Amino acid sequence: MTAVTVACCQLAPVLGELEANRDRAAAAIEAAAASGAAIVVLPELAISGYVFAGREEAWALGEDLDGPTVHQWSALAAEHDLVIVGGVCERDVTAGALHNTAVVIDAGGLLGAYRKVHLWDREAQVFAAGSQPPLVLDTRPGRLGVIVCYDAEFPEWIRAAALAGAELLCVPTNWPREPRPAGERPSEVVRVQAGAASNRMFIAACDRAGHERGTDWVSGTVIVGPDGYPLAGPACRDEPLTLVASCALARARDKRVGVRNDVLADRRPELYERLSGA
Amino acid sequence: MTAVTVACCQLAPVLGELEANRDRAAAAIEAAAASGAAIVVLPELAISGYVFAGREEAWALGEDLDGPTVHQWSALAAEHDLVIVGGVCERDVTAGALHNTAVVIDAGGLLGAYRKVHLWDREAQVFAAGSQPPLVLDTRPGRLGVIVCYDAEFPEWIRAAALAGAELLCVPTNWPREPRPAGERPSEVVRVQAGAASNRMFIAACDRAGHERGTDWVSGTVIVGPDGYPLAGPACRDEPLTLVASCALARARDKRVGVRNDVLADRRPELYERLSGA
Repeated sequence: MTAVTVACCQLAPVLGELEANRDRAAAAIEAAAASGAAIVVLPELAISGYVFAGREEAWALGEDLDGPTVHQWSALAAEHDLVIVGGVCERDVTAGALHNTAVVIDAGGLLGAYRKVHLWDREAQVFAAGSQPPLVLDTRPGRLGVIVCYDAEFPEWIRAAALAGAELLCVPTNWPREPRPAGERPSEVVRVQAGAASNRMFIAACDRAGHERGTDWVSGTVIVGPDGYPLAGPACRDEPLTLVASCALARARDKRVGVRNDVLADRRPELYERLSGA
Repeated sequence: MTAVTVACCQLAPVLGELEANRDRAAAAIEAAAASGAAIVVLPELAISGYVFAGREEAWALGEDLDGPTVHQWSALAAEHDLVIVGGVCERDVTAGALHNTAVVIDAGGLLGAYRKVHLWDREAQVFAAGSQPPLVLDTRPGRLGVIVCYDAEFPEWIRAAALAGAELLCVPTNWPREPRPAGERPSEVVRVQAGAASNRMFIAACDRAGHERGTDWVSGTVIVGPDGYPLAGPACRDEPLTLVASCALARARDKRVGVRNDVLADRRPELYERLSGA
């Protein structure tokens, strides 16, 4: 079975330093390409930073999907024949709206964009929530799904990506660090593991590092296989780093578990439907 | 906030030794009561054993819900003022059907029964699948939900119990042991942790021990709090043992996370509905 190398570049963007953050992202992407990566996942809001003072600052740091970040990532994807998934602060000038968006870019340019549906904390004061399902699309190395950070706390949303056939779910994140019991893996990582196992799908969650206006981060970047165990990470080290894992993505098409079971075919959707809206 | 002691009695039933298994369960329940437990959770199929040669054997080892196990547990619940949740091989003589059932018993006797909806491996050759939602009911120590083993691999089903207001989800299980990477917590336990965190609910999963016709068990009994971290277990030791944890069950009524979020209120059910049947 053919395997591809998936890389997650945990970056430490500095709020507002757009050019420097783009340079850092580009250097990480190039290093990932040099290590053989076919798919590179970057954090949420990888270029703007996250902890905006308010909507006005976010707007000033935003860009449209024909902007410099998409241009830069498209050039890198073309140069190295990569698929790049990463977060941008999307300015929709026509609608006057900002979105917390993840883009998918390959050698031909922008393939698709997903606007975060479940907004965390003050994001609702800055961003308009998306209302489309998880983005799931075919790329040369495999069928990718895309959701963003807090979206992954909703098992319904991970399931939706799996039902749409995602082999690798890419999750750009900025996970704020919370206290946890000594020796415990962060709950955010545990939930990614569970999502991978429940759906027999690969998940690459790319977190960030760096202190930003009082917020620290889990720095829990992790690549998980369809058995639910990490293939790389989580390092939980507050520094930029790149994790790579060799992933035979076609394994995610096989939903069998044990001898007689199948994690999707065994669902009882007729029983779930009357409960989902409760 | 008032806390109650929740106990999980990881038993090692011997297939077909009904009387001896009931004695073992009774001794474990009495010990849990002596340690202050208000709620005692037992494994799936705690009295019959699990690896039946076929339907005929299971039928012979089954009993109805007015049978000796429910009688014994009712007497123990009355004597010690306990709530007991445990698995029985339910023989429905009228319908000629067997069910993999979990009962909830308090000092007044049988409060409710739940028939496993998602059947694992050869269970489908033995048991008729249930078709009712997770059992969720009020007991003196708190509002309990009940599902069984493989049910917990379906995030939809854990969510359904949370949406129905379960503060403590009780999960009698028999988790067959599979290989796992060194140092990794079993995926079954990881999924229980994720279910607790995603729903901000307590979960008590009571597994079993003992070798049975070629099958070993995870013995991963665990009690998890609404933050998703274990309060007791998993020991993953192949032996009978009782875990206890003090649980302020009312904490599970508060679904807030961070300052501005709520794991149930932040759901977007209008977006999930069109996906659930896919």
